[in-house]
Amino acid sequence: MSAPIFSRVVIVGVGLIGGSFALALKQAGLARSVVGVGRQQANLQQALELGVIDQALPLAEAVTGADLIFLAVPVAQTEAVLRSLAPHLAAHALITDGGSTKQDVIAAARAALGEKFSQFVAAHPIAGSEFNGAAAARVDLYQARRVILCPEADTPAAALATVRAVWQACGAQVSDMPAAQHDAVFAAVSHLPHMLAFAYMNHVLASDDAELKLQMGGTGFRDFTRIGGGNADMWADIALANRKDVLDEIAHFQATLEQLKEKISSGDRAALRAFIEASSQARRQWKI
Amino acid sequence: MSAPIFSRVVIVGVGLIGGSFALALKQAGLARSVVGVGRQQANLQQALELGVIDQALPLAEAVTGADLIFLAVPVAQTEAVLRSLAPHLAAHALITDGGSTKQDVIAAARAALGEKFSQFVAAHPIAGSEFNGAAAARVDLYQARRVILCPEADTPAAALATVRAVWQACGAQVSDMPAAQHDAVFAAVSHLPHMLAFAYMNHVLASDDAELKLQMGGTGFRDFTRIGGGNADMWADIALANRKDVLDEIAHFQATLEQLKEKISSGDRAALRAFIEASSQARRQWKI
Repeated sequence: MSAPIFSRVVIVGVGLIGGSFALALKQAGLARSVVGVGRQQANLQQALELGVIDQALPLAEAVTGADLIFLAVPVAQTEAVLRSLAPHLAAHALITDGGSTKQDVIAAARAALGEKFSQFVAAHPIAGSEFNGAAAARVDLYQARRVILCPEADTPAAALATVRAVWQACGAQVSDMPAAQHDAVFAAVSHLPHMLAFAYMNHVLASDDAELKLQMGGTGFRDFTRIGGGNADMWADIALANRKDVLDEIAHFQATLEQLKEKISSGDRAALRAFIEASSQARRQWKI
Repeated sequence: MSAPIFSRVVIVGVGLIGGSFALALKQAGLARSVVGVGRQQANLQQALELGVIDQALPLAEAVTGADLIFLAVPVAQTEAVLRSLAPHLAAHALITDGGSTKQDVIAAARAALGEKFSQFVAAHPIAGSEFNGAAAARVDLYQARRVILCPEADTPAAALATVRAVWQACGAQVSDMPAAQHDAVFAAVSHLPHMLAFAYMNHVLASDDAELKLQMGGTGFRDFTRIGGGNADMWADIALANRKDVLDEIAHFQATLEQLKEKISSGDRAALRAFIEASSQARRQWKI
């Protein structure tokens, strides 16, 4: 199906993720009007000036008369925001989100929306960067990027189809996955690498000659640590929201690192080489 | 000082590192003739066709009459190559290298060269990529990149000055560091991140749904794992050559990762946020 044209799309949290969604829907001709909701007036003002949103309103007012609402807030705020907007939600309106964890977001949506949970379709766009705010929004952020939808058994097929079409209109490759599988997969391919990069940077900073070391980092250091610059509030929330899977991933990684340490310490070059070659081969074959 | 013009520069190992050195010296007008030495005929042929080298010769023949020799071979091969070339080395010739570890290379050079060790100046260009071979060589690889020289107490000042001028002519920012400090610093900023990327890729590959996970990796995964595609022979050699420092780094990293795990598992959001923020702030301020 192709997506319907929405009279009013509401973006709660007009940053990189929310702002880029607004720009992409506008470019696709799917949003007659985009209303931004946020706590930082300067950011909303910038979003207005950049044409990311058409107007800024308080949440209740924005949601009244909205057809589509996109939540781009830290996952820990999902329940509070949904509780505030629920009384103002039209019966035909749909809600989707951009959170990086899905079991907690779905639980929050169930708790906050009650029977209106059928209007919510959980989504995770695999896109982002280390930049924040409305000024970072890009019309092509979702172009050719994956978006994972996590429908529940009671998610209506029509709501799922519409939200799928909306993300496709943003240029995304949309696929579905149960929320539990989503959280386990992204604990491995996203949350763990972020935790390792945060731990690595802290490790370097804790050493006596941290300043010299930072000066000596080359292109490998640059790329390996890029995600170590991620937003602290967002990543603290993600780690806690997906705590069990993240801790499992760290524990299994620790065991693998211990194996590598053993190979280096025993001086078994053939085993060490085979370990590195497995990584090297898989990474050289990998494409985004 | 400016670098002298060399009649014959010999490149032992005409890959990315050796080939780029040759191209940069030619462009700077410092090499009348560049002779390549290597074991892979197809690669040498390609180097000739691409104008990276002017001729290919066996080691002994190449070194006879050479003024400057650049070793761009895996660090574990340093001693064998230097033993083979030592009898043919002219008294005025200088040798430098591109190895990623320096204490082992210097020990190998002392053992192989004996009194002629005074003709050797250990160097580490902080440049590279996941690509190999003469075809990957780039005239600007060293432009604005760091090169670390590790002079010893008995390295003649004139040899050091000439090798410094050669690397500067390649466009590099050259600085000096004792070999022990070099190895400790690069264990932290280069060898450890590589080991973590190798371990991380093996960790993902060992899971049941490895294929799905690899499909779901986004731009963060891409950058974090780029160095995980490094050459297995080269990195096995580096890990073993710098074994003590690498094992120390892994052990300290393990302790830091354990701290992070504790913060997640205890649910202490403020402590977790502060840990991530330390990484984030340092990384956002960092520049190559």
